[in-house]
Amino acid sequence: MTDTPLLILGAAFSDEERDRLEAAHSAVYAASHDDIAVLSEDSRASVKALAFKGHNPLGGATMDLLPNLGLIANYGVGYDAINVEDASVRGIKVTNTPDVLNDDVADLAVGMMIAQSRNMVEGDAWVRSGKWATGENLPLNRKMSGSTVGIVGLGRIGRDIADRLAAFKMDIHYHARSEKETPGWTFHSDVVSLASAVDYLVIALVGGKATEKYVSREAIAALGPRGVIVNISRGSTIDEEALIEALENNTIAGAGLDVFNDEPKVDERFYALDNAVLQPHQGSGTVETRRAMAELQLANITAHLSGTDLLTPVN
Amino acid sequence: MTDTPLLILGAAFSDEERDRLEAAHSAVYAASHDDIAVLSEDSRASVKALAFKGHNPLGGATMDLLPNLGLIANYGVGYDAINVEDASVRGIKVTNTPDVLNDDVADLAVGMMIAQSRNMVEGDAWVRSGKWATGENLPLNRKMSGSTVGIVGLGRIGRDIADRLAAFKMDIHYHARSEKETPGWTFHSDVVSLASAVDYLVIALVGGKATEKYVSREAIAALGPRGVIVNISRGSTIDEEALIEALENNTIAGAGLDVFNDEPKVDERFYALDNAVLQPHQGSGTVETRRAMAELQLANITAHLSGTDLLTPVN
Repeated sequence: MTDTPLLILGAAFSDEERDRLEAAHSAVYAASHDDIAVLSEDSRASVKALAFKGHNPLGGATMDLLPNLGLIANYGVGYDAINVEDASVRGIKVTNTPDVLNDDVADLAVGMMIAQSRNMVEGDAWVRSGKWATGENLPLNRKMSGSTVGIVGLGRIGRDIADRLAAFKMDIHYHARSEKETPGWTFHSDVVSLASAVDYLVIALVGGKATEKYVSREAIAALGPRGVIVNISRGSTIDEEALIEALENNTIAGAGLDVFNDEPKVDERFYALDNAVLQPHQGSGTVETRRAMAELQLANITAHLSGTDLLTPVN
Repeated sequence: MTDTPLLILGAAFSDEERDRLEAAHSAVYAASHDDIAVLSEDSRASVKALAFKGHNPLGGATMDLLPNLGLIANYGVGYDAINVEDASVRGIKVTNTPDVLNDDVADLAVGMMIAQSRNMVEGDAWVRSGKWATGENLPLNRKMSGSTVGIVGLGRIGRDIADRLAAFKMDIHYHARSEKETPGWTFHSDVVSLASAVDYLVIALVGGKATEKYVSREAIAALGPRGVIVNISRGSTIDEEALIEALENNTIAGAGLDVFNDEPKVDERFYALDNAVLQPHQGSGTVETRRAMAELQLANITAHLSGTDLLTPVN
């Protein structure tokens, strides 16, 4: 009889992350669903908790391979890869790693806004290429402070972004399901109205089916030729085809994007855009925060296996 | 008898900027000191105000070519190229363009801090190169929010930087000639003490002889291997040789630099550094702010020529 109460699922785990989980609990590793199916029935029956990382869908079919599974502990705040409904009907709890990554994601959102407005990526290349030394100057860029920003989704990350931008003397607007307690920020009941009122549109929605293409073609058009879109949520939350067209045709001014549909296989049309700052989904990608996320994932697993309260349950 | 009360001095002026000045006042243009010397005596005698832009030294020898000069109106907040003492002894007033550029300079300072910490320039290149699509990942980067920053020079720009960084939950330290009224920020009476206490050292000094190499080799060493230097003031305010050595040898973690000695002919050793974000002195380089600077320069010239009070006198 095997006794490996923990299943580590996902090729996205680094060796160091796997080592830490395995040091805490007897564990078996599977890169994908297929690797679970080939585990022995004994081994599968011994699994009580699943440590998950990545974006590959995890649904009922996988859960049914693990008859004693009680917890899916996600690494990350966004758990749209996990079918929570499938988990709930099977009595499986789901946890995520909220809050510990808010600061980093907000920092990168603001960083992309400044980098896009101030043409920083090209500026860096300009210096290094020696072109500056010849006396040639880059075109002037665009002032960010004092302009108007719209936050789409005023959850914890959205608020952390807005709080930072307030220090840049920006006028804060937002759209959320309902009006929230704020320091005088302007509420919009729909995203098109928000887009038409602002210079920068920052998407801080949760992912998943409910928010698919939430920032629609119409919202992108409403933003207009001075508008800049920043997305640090999920590629799915915006109509990516409409976004690419708007960037290619300059019907919006630019974008700062940390997330994409089908990432890491980004639509190659993005590569040629000179009005977008592109980042490889590294909103939470700091040493400090990834460690905090791993610790919170492990704390949830340990809580479940020792029968104490989960720290950050989702369902 | 010519009547051109305005001399426009400096090849740095754009055509548009020259046009605006010439539309307001009868003007003669000189790219450099040598071009003034060849103007007729009549023409030189008619000059009452000088519009200045650039970094070429402007001292008594040039002023003596213009016997009726009463004002040197600098384009920019930093007027270290102008010998103010030489001007004062000749009864010539000097003006600059403060405040209108504070927001932009502060934005770029914060942008360079985030870009350096979060490896944004390489992140953008990583996506565009297609490397991300192959599944390769960049190394994790570094959390900025919540760390400690030291501002060297708590003038108006230094304060605008500190106010923004406070919204990133950073612990603010500063060094200035004397302790200032602040919201609880920590004062250091010398720059080495400041450097040894912080993660990020942001230089917001005025330029000129008094601050040459103010951030010394010793201060750079005190910052240590986790330290990041940001300079948005003048290349002269730091020991650049010591800075390059520290960056090459990783005795500090990195830098974000908008200013350099001998710019735009930057020391070519900077080009190869992968731990620095380099910008071509574009702290104030936005359409909005450059226009505001030009307007303030012109307003000072018009005030002088019409005998009303200067808006932003320096001496």
